[in-house]
Amino acid sequence: MNKREFGDCFNEECALIGVWNHQEAANLAYLGLYSQQHRGQEGAGIVSYNDDNCKLYIHKGIGLVSEVFDDFDFQRLPGRNAIGHVRYSTAGDCRLAEVQPFQAEISNGRMALAQNGNLINNAELRSGLIKEGAIFTSTSDTESILHLIARKAQKNPPVKAVIEALPSIKGAYSLLILFNDRLIAARDPNGLRPLVLGEINGSYVLASETCAFDLIGATFVRDIEPGEIVEISGSKDIASHFPFGKSKGTPCIFEYVYFSRPDSTWNGKNVYQARKKMGHELAKESPIEADIVVPVPDSGVAAAIGFSEESGIPFEMGLIRNHYVGRTFIEPQQSIRDFGVKIKHNANKQILNGKRVVVVDDSIVRGTTTKKLIKMFRAAGAKEIHVRITAPPTKGSCFYGIDTPTQEQLIAHQMSVEEIKEYIDADSLAYLSIDGLYRAVNSEKGSMCDACFTKNYPIGVPSSCTVE
Amino acid sequence: MNKREFGDCFNEECALIGVWNHQEAANLAYLGLYSQQHRGQEGAGIVSYNDDNCKLYIHKGIGLVSEVFDDFDFQRLPGRNAIGHVRYSTAGDCRLAEVQPFQAEISNGRMALAQNGNLINNAELRSGLIKEGAIFTSTSDTESILHLIARKAQKNPPVKAVIEALPSIKGAYSLLILFNDRLIAARDPNGLRPLVLGEINGSYVLASETCAFDLIGATFVRDIEPGEIVEISGSKDIASHFPFGKSKGTPCIFEYVYFSRPDSTWNGKNVYQARKKMGHELAKESPIEADIVVPVPDSGVAAAIGFSEESGIPFEMGLIRNHYVGRTFIEPQQSIRDFGVKIKHNANKQILNGKRVVVVDDSIVRGTTTKKLIKMFRAAGAKEIHVRITAPPTKGSCFYGIDTPTQEQLIAHQMSVEEIKEYIDADSLAYLSIDGLYRAVNSEKGSMCDACFTKNYPIGVPSSCTVE
Amino acid sequence: MNKREFGDCFNEECALIGVWNHQEAANLAYLGLYSQQHRGQEGAGIVSYNDDNCKLYIHKGIGLVSEVFDDFDFQRLPGRNAIGHVRYSTAGDCRLAEVQPFQAEISNGRMALAQNGNLINNAELRSGLIKEGAIFTSTSDTESILHLIARKAQKNPPVKAVIEALPSIKGAYSLLILFNDRLIAARDPNGLRPLVLGEINGSYVLASETCAFDLIGATFVRDIEPGEIVEISGSKDIASHFPFGKSKGTPCIFEYVYFSRPDSTWNGKNVYQARKKMGHELAKESPIEADIVVPVPDSGVAAAIGFSEESGIPFEMGLIRNHYVGRTFIEPQQSIRDFGVKIKHNANKQILNGKRVVVVDDSIVRGTTTKKLIKMFRAAGAKEIHVRITAPPTKGSCFYGIDTPTQEQLIAHQMSVEEIKEYIDADSLAYLSIDGLYRAVNSEKGSMCDACFTKNYPIGVPSSCTVE
Amino acid sequence: MNKREFGDCFNEECALIGVWNHQEAANLAYLGLYSQQHRGQEGAGIVSYNDDNCKLYIHKGIGLVSEVFDDFDFQRLPGRNAIGHVRYSTAGDCRLAEVQPFQAEISNGRMALAQNGNLINNAELRSGLIKEGAIFTSTSDTESILHLIARKAQKNPPVKAVIEALPSIKGAYSLLILFNDRLIAARDPNGLRPLVLGEINGSYVLASETCAFDLIGATFVRDIEPGEIVEISGSKDIASHFPFGKSKGTPCIFEYVYFSRPDSTWNGKNVYQARKKMGHELAKESPIEADIVVPVPDSGVAAAIGFSEESGIPFEMGLIRNHYVGRTFIEPQQSIRDFGVKIKHNANKQILNGKRVVVVDDSIVRGTTTKKLIKMFRAAGAKEIHVRITAPPTKGSCFYGIDTPTQEQLIAHQMSVEEIKEYIDADSLAYLSIDGLYRAVNSEKGSMCDACFTKNYPIGVPSSCTVE
Repeated sequence: MNKREFGDCFNEECALIGVWNHQEAANLAYLGLYSQQHRGQEGAGIVSYNDDNCKLYIHKGIGLVSEVFDDFDFQRLPGRNAIGHVRYSTAGDCRLAEVQPFQAEISNGRMALAQNGNLINNAELRSGLIKEGAIFTSTSDTESILHLIARKAQKNPPVKAVIEALPSIKGAYSLLILFNDRLIAARDPNGLRPLVLGEINGSYVLASETCAFDLIGATFVRDIEPGEIVEISGSKDIASHFPFGKSKGTPCIFEYVYFSRPDSTWNGKNVYQARKKMGHELAKESPIEADIVVPVPDSGVAAAIGFSEESGIPFEMGLIRNHYVGRTFIEPQQSIRDFGVKIKHNANKQILNGKRVVVVDDSIVRGTTTKKLIKMFRAAGAKEIHVRITAPPTKGSCFYGIDTPTQEQLIAHQMSVEEIKEYIDADSLAYLSIDGLYRAVNSEKGSMCDACFTKNYPIGVPSSCTVE
Repeated sequence: MNKREFGDCFNEECALIGVWNHQEAANLAYLGLYSQQHRGQEGAGIVSYNDDNCKLYIHKGIGLVSEVFDDFDFQRLPGRNAIGHVRYSTAGDCRLAEVQPFQAEISNGRMALAQNGNLINNAELRSGLIKEGAIFTSTSDTESILHLIARKAQKNPPVKAVIEALPSIKGAYSLLILFNDRLIAARDPNGLRPLVLGEINGSYVLASETCAFDLIGATFVRDIEPGEIVEISGSKDIASHFPFGKSKGTPCIFEYVYFSRPDSTWNGKNVYQARKKMGHELAKESPIEADIVVPVPDSGVAAAIGFSEESGIPFEMGLIRNHYVGRTFIEPQQSIRDFGVKIKHNANKQILNGKRVVVVDDSIVRGTTTKKLIKMFRAAGAKEIHVRITAPPTKGSCFYGIDTPTQEQLIAHQMSVEEIKEYIDADSLAYLSIDGLYRAVNSEKGSMCDACFTKNYPIGVPSSCTVE
Repeated sequence: MNKREFGDCFNEECALIGVWNHQEAANLAYLGLYSQQHRGQEGAGIVSYNDDNCKLYIHKGIGLVSEVFDDFDFQRLPGRNAIGHVRYSTAGDCRLAEVQPFQAEISNGRMALAQNGNLINNAELRSGLIKEGAIFTSTSDTESILHLIARKAQKNPPVKAVIEALPSIKGAYSLLILFNDRLIAARDPNGLRPLVLGEINGSYVLASETCAFDLIGATFVRDIEPGEIVEISGSKDIASHFPFGKSKGTPCIFEYVYFSRPDSTWNGKNVYQARKKMGHELAKESPIEADIVVPVPDSGVAAAIGFSEESGIPFEMGLIRNHYVGRTFIEPQQSIRDFGVKIKHNANKQILNGKRVVVVDDSIVRGTTTKKLIKMFRAAGAKEIHVRITAPPTKGSCFYGIDTPTQEQLIAHQMSVEEIKEYIDADSLAYLSIDGLYRAVNSEKGSMCDACFTKNYPIGVPSSCTVE
Repeated sequence: MNKREFGDCFNEECALIGVWNHQEAANLAYLGLYSQQHRGQEGAGIVSYNDDNCKLYIHKGIGLVSEVFDDFDFQRLPGRNAIGHVRYSTAGDCRLAEVQPFQAEISNGRMALAQNGNLINNAELRSGLIKEGAIFTSTSDTESILHLIARKAQKNPPVKAVIEALPSIKGAYSLLILFNDRLIAARDPNGLRPLVLGEINGSYVLASETCAFDLIGATFVRDIEPGEIVEISGSKDIASHFPFGKSKGTPCIFEYVYFSRPDSTWNGKNVYQARKKMGHELAKESPIEADIVVPVPDSGVAAAIGFSEESGIPFEMGLIRNHYVGRTFIEPQQSIRDFGVKIKHNANKQILNGKRVVVVDDSIVRGTTTKKLIKMFRAAGAKEIHVRITAPPTKGSCFYGIDTPTQEQLIAHQMSVEEIKEYIDADSLAYLSIDGLYRAVNSEKGSMCDACFTKNYPIGVPSSCTVE
């Protein structure tokens, strides 16, 4: 899956980090963002709270975590509590005003808020708030949540304010909210986006993925549950609230397919192992005679290993990824053929030449990138190219926090599998079935959000959007 | 192999790019450096020559190619001819004055020079030149070469000046030299460092590795031969000179083991295939009963695949590499255990837990990184850890352009294999034999420079250095 | 008067610029800020409005106008309408969030707001707004005004919203408010801070000082009157509203003494001429026998010329100002005596040696700078030093937009003139009387705000502040 | 005199600073450059020498001292000895390679060199050196001096090397040369450019102007004499050499007219006083009936005071200078009339309206700036404009270190005084006579270099230049 292909911006992709009561709170938050950089490369920010003077400190910027915090002196983010955020947005205009965490002065002090997700009733919330006199300085739906909680916080203590505010919010959200005296973590009732709790030296940490815990040496405690509001205060007091009742929710299955890092474990399953199993299932469902199995790195690697194991066809890194790719390129004017693809990947001719190749990738979104990759494979001498996708066709846009283009731009919405095969010029093309995907993640069919494949949107879509 | 471990600076690691007679010369040079970024991440520069006004243009900087040329307007590097350079140096003080290409006004115009390699008689050359009145503004041995050629160029046409200057230079060098009216490429008589010739739209390009040609859409023509001086002029005139006679030389075998990109082909062999074969040979020489084969990414991947194929033990990506690692980190003060290793790699517990693991890496240099990795594997629950190294023990420092520490700091110089095994806390440790390595690269034993393993230095060492 | 001496932050000093219906609106705004740079050196911002897509564009930064807009491409601020702001604040923490103009999405589109002044009931406004659910992202009182107008704009057209909002605001304010279809300029009923209207090529411009018009080639039309709300719309429609009725107000007399640029004309009087007249009055009131009259540049120059004319004592530039002073210095550790003063001014020994010197300055705030200057004069050989201040003793803090320290820190609040003379080590010290000052600005006594000298605060002080 | 008017680059204008044996050498050097910023705003550099490790440290950059050393940590320039340099050049391409000090490794260690001046035989020196094999990496004539001294230093101790090298150098030069064990200061036999010696806490300092000593609290000791080579070593040993013999030389008279800061004292005369005296002489030579005397600030201020004193016509600051002018402006496209002049100066209409004005400036170079200023004065309502220039007509280009355009571009080379008066549209125009100028600086006619007025070039001009 190639993000850069997307032209539209429905969604912001993000990661969260929270640290409570640790003497190096902001520094740990920074490292936690570092290890979750794959979830958002266009902006990063950390807010810390300092008990000594009751002040919030903030540092934000456009770019990678390493750029935003280049040579940063963490004494400028003092205090034992901190939350942080990285974000990705395809919107051309990446403005500092959009970078989270957001913060505000409210009646009982200051609060800071960071969100991973996407609301589906934001238009209504925003216009309602504006009618009540609220002003908005960004385009982010997170600002609506900030307003709603701030309003409830006039007359309520923090956790009550959050509990009272959340029912008006529809959508996918994992939240970290830092108040003077407590850190609140919340996950929407469907638990669409991940949020995990860990522990380090007797202090609590929260993150979107467990890989953040590994870097800072924290221990995984448990997932925050769907609809759960966790309240951390004092030195290590923790309380749990379920204002929406308890349920298993419908966590996002696409986190396994593409978005999470392979070394993360979520919802009880390891991402790498889930992907390998997708490869196994795919090889069972759509076997093919071939000489080598080649992944589109990095997301296709685990599945390709699984496919290789199941099929007995040798696994080869026939496509090399350039890991030094920055955010901008200066392209030659007399354009090099398929330049955009080449800057990220290079086909190893010596491996591919004369071979029948199984190419394993996680998705075909618009189809243009896959088409170019196949062209590159053919130019490298591949004799046959059999594309195997580790998930069903992507037919529905995500409205819950994964950045996908509009339905019209999704090739699987416009074409049949056979037509896509023709378009991308593959010798064969097969997708993993929805049943196979659920087998791979070892879950009951329908127990997760699979709307991008089935168009079954568990909490509906924004009123302005129609889904055929 | 983990470069950051090295504390000493013997050598500069580099890549070269040259473009002759192309309307987007500097832009192609930039892309060529981009794809060779792995050969040097601490500085980059391009010099272009504009026929219209007989001027050299230069842009250099500290950092990655994407940083040095961030938002760069290539109209500031006009002209149809260009050379470029990236470099890596462990010297703490990375100064702009050290960044190549170097340029000078000489008697018959201007020249620019970029080098990949390392001279062994630089101390003598430098002091000799200084005695003759030369001044040095950098610490680089490339400046000595610049002086020598400039002196010869007083009375000789460019190629003659180069031919007359080179005999006084001892060491490993691949050179690109841009004059007003010609581009000269030279490789030392032993051909220690690579240099390849390609073609794009009827224009010549030169690079350290063929992967540069793939990105810009150029076709590989041939290796520049050991001791060859190639002179390109006019629109596409090319002439070849062999002032030292013809020979096969002793190209660096370590380019296959670690340094080159796997999709590059050099000296007739593909790097990825060579590495895979090292894995095969290693599995034959040092078989072991285990559950999984895990590479230290990225350099160990191909060899681990080979090891897995030969041994039948499943290949797993049990170690995940963080690709967003920048050049600096802000470490927490109460230091996280083995932080330096963790920021680059994370062990996937779910994969390793309870397993007997074969870990495949290309080298053990000082031993500290390997020791930390094994600790991380054990913490992740690995039951047994069998380290397999795809080359013989690194016993000798390189004086020919690969950055290795002093002999004293090389663990294999200080300890036996058994002692190293104890030190790094592995359950078993085996290195590929020198014979196995030559089999893997399909070359006659001794036909390449293998001094880092054998201490057979084909052209000697600097007079100030002693090798036991 | 030396701003850098101040340790406290009551006030923000600012300048405004507005341009309506000009094809280079943002570029003119930039130049207008440039010429008003003396009113605020720590942050600058411009908001433009583009009719074609109904969007606000914004560019802000910390630093001088030349730094914030260094190499700026004004196509990034498109549209025919723009407002801009520069600010100065002594608050140590100069945050981007504080830099104006502020902007918001409100019910009928977007609005942007910039203010010069200071509210005295901001604490009450802010807490009231927060109680009603408003959130604050800066510490600026301008954010309160933004909220108030936004609330009124729910049900009212822009100018009505402003008219309804202003009565709740107490304090000194000159405002520029940019809506989709109109630009509104407002001055508080007392007209404490300046705001002038000009015209350029048939388009209206607004600024804090007339010197902005001179640079861009605009013609001065008139002062915005105290309590006037001017509404500009269409191509050049202009309407005037006086919701508070008409009055002469009490404009700030200190603009003449120190703050305005000498080439500005305000309230019908030229600042340079007013200052010269202060020098005349001072020489009449407190004559002295001396050899030379030396101004503390730049604010003391005009008055020193006046003093010289009246007294017949020669005028000399005995103190040279270093105009390259940046915002930070790296001071030597073994501190140079009176370093802070020396970096800004140097005494010309050849001029001062052996002389009886009249030193003319506009104010003595804390006294420390004057004390150091006198020490420097004495070290340069001055025989006698007679300090003449072009205004009465500064006894009251300003709460209306001029940055002064707390009353306790004002030397004239703590000491008598005689005691101050001793403290600064002058041979004589005299201040201009309040009557003399009014004569100099040719106004009836009490017709302007002179609270810094008299403690007669025409609109009171913030409830949290007491004035003895 | 308006530098920005110049389109050609003959010369580099510069300032030097040197500190020997002071624990904060680099920090003092920085401050010394700060106070000499008016001599060069386009680049700055400092080299320090650290005895402990025998290393040179260097920091250079493009821009103002405050920009180049913004947030600089002076521990990066350790050592007790340092030299520094600021430069100005009109060459469009301001490259880092041109910024001094230059440094080199030579036979007996390292040396660093900074120059203020301009060689007239550089073309010959450079081509000669290149023929001998020297390479040049900048376009600066200082690099030639570096080569010459380096060559002599092969067989000679430092001071001998300098003494042997200087005879081949023709031109204006003040030099600071830092060797491992000594600091050498040299002034050309004609002493064209200034160089002064001072003392601070028992350590020696050297600077171009005495104002540098005032800032750092150093005491002026004496001028370095024309043709003198001063050698400072040990803790405070000082030796003086006169290889060319002793003479009074021909110091540059234009330093008094325009270039030096008014608070500097040089060649025994204070610059401010010299300028005032020029005003007196001018009023005597070319009296006029008028209402006010207005200087073009800052260089015309002292002379205007003198003119006012002599003539009895009141002095007024009718032209206000904008001190926040940065290095670049973004000009509006539909260009504002006389924009370039307005950004620097604004005419105060209230002062000028209806007046007969004497405008005092130091020079008319090309005439365009003066023409625009007069237009601005007339637009401000001035009734008559009488231009008085404090020096004779500038008829000759400077080849000795002051940046003037080619002779052809000098209006006084092309036109008579009467014609210039018509061109600039003045009511009268008068220049100070050469005799008057010498009277003002209290020197015997011809005892200083006055070539810009008389075309008597005391050491000739570059061979490639002809002077009519």
